[in-house]
Amino acid sequence: MINHPANRQAALDYFTQIPGAAILVHGGGRKASEVLAAMGIAPKMINGRRITDAASLEVVTMVYAGLLNKQLVADLQKAGCSAIGFSGADADVIRASKRPVREIDYGFAGDIQSINAPLLAQVLELNLRPVLCPITHNGSGQLLNTNADTIANETAQAMAHIGHAVSLRYCFELPGVLEDIHRPESVISQITSADYTELKARGIIADGMIPKLDNAFAALQAGVKEVVIGNINTMSAAKATRLI
Amino acid sequence: MINHPANRQAALDYFTQIPGAAILVHGGGRKASEVLAAMGIAPKMINGRRITDAASLEVVTMVYAGLLNKQLVADLQKAGCSAIGFSGADADVIRASKRPVREIDYGFAGDIQSINAPLLAQVLELNLRPVLCPITHNGSGQLLNTNADTIANETAQAMAHIGHAVSLRYCFELPGVLEDIHRPESVISQITSADYTELKARGIIADGMIPKLDNAFAALQAGVKEVVIGNINTMSAAKATRLI
Repeated sequence: MINHPANRQAALDYFTQIPGAAILVHGGGRKASEVLAAMGIAPKMINGRRITDAASLEVVTMVYAGLLNKQLVADLQKAGCSAIGFSGADADVIRASKRPVREIDYGFAGDIQSINAPLLAQVLELNLRPVLCPITHNGSGQLLNTNADTIANETAQAMAHIGHAVSLRYCFELPGVLEDIHRPESVISQITSADYTELKARGIIADGMIPKLDNAFAALQAGVKEVVIGNINTMSAAKATRLI
Repeated sequence: MINHPANRQAALDYFTQIPGAAILVHGGGRKASEVLAAMGIAPKMINGRRITDAASLEVVTMVYAGLLNKQLVADLQKAGCSAIGFSGADADVIRASKRPVREIDYGFAGDIQSINAPLLAQVLELNLRPVLCPITHNGSGQLLNTNADTIANETAQAMAHIGHAVSLRYCFELPGVLEDIHRPESVISQITSADYTELKARGIIADGMIPKLDNAFAALQAGVKEVVIGNINTMSAAKATRLI
């Protein structure tokens, strides 16, 4: 989303205009790949999945927690939104553990153990908007690389758990969940859990969309009020898919 | 200081053991030079001073705000110290302006305009310890590279200004202000403003030490309670130079 300048500005505008409290979670794989290439570090892949070795961890920490997080925060400040950047290590906001080695050693990939929701609530009470990057820590000095979508999902659940009314919004490439994958205008406006079961049975929702929606419905099950899925255009126009 | 592993651990221990509220300011020029070299970016120097061009600004933002800041925060968390990293953009903590071009264009070098001391005080009240990296912003979306010693000095003054009793401690290579530059054991334990005038007149304090001490006495003049200058060993042993 933030890889394209036009989308980036639209996303910042959208985030800035959300009333009340809000938390932004970002990734940044494209820029990380550029810096890895510039430093002559070959991406390590196993079965098409990126492995975070020690050299890659240094680079993603620099790119996610440094360059992208601080440029986002500076741009939000420019827009009058008092943002504050976080890695999981900052104020111990997200603890993770190194993913156990089974068939594949993912290296310094972190699976979330806990979200410090009370601290995030205190930061929100200072009228600050946390901007979370996908770097976490294990409490023993080890930084870890964690999936941004998972951070958003778990943070939403943790905030709901301490009594906040949470709307979780995922910006991705598609305009929303589509009735017909070939027609971007066929966005399904609302899906309940019962609808979801039916849409899967009819084969309307399939493939990569299933894990995404499974996670979204798990968040709803855990107390999140709604999940909205779309791209920045449909999201801004309130035409993205709403899961309830 | 944090370039050497042994000193780094000693500095973390020292910081962790300070009672009450504390703020850490760090630099990191050596690592930035390594990454610049690894990315094939030639350091731009004019009259022996580094110029922050656009490519260098990206790198120092990655290194200072990303890698070094987050690794320090993670290590402090490990030591049971709840640290929280900041660039100047985060929570609008340090605003700076791009240094005006006179004889030399320093590029994206930032001169401090304001420190958000009330926000830092609120963060300290949450029992968090801010860890400031030398990246600032101008409020219009531009990140800037700012001298870490200046950040420490101005932050100390700003905190004193809102009523905090501030001890400002500079860790550098020397054990303190020396009576004889060739004898590291000749640390002067305490220097008042009157002593300073006399020591300069006698030629005991000269060269690079003068701007450092001028800044230190300016901080005292502005309400900072004491300034301590030394290396991590003398600092930890309370044998560094104390300016009052």
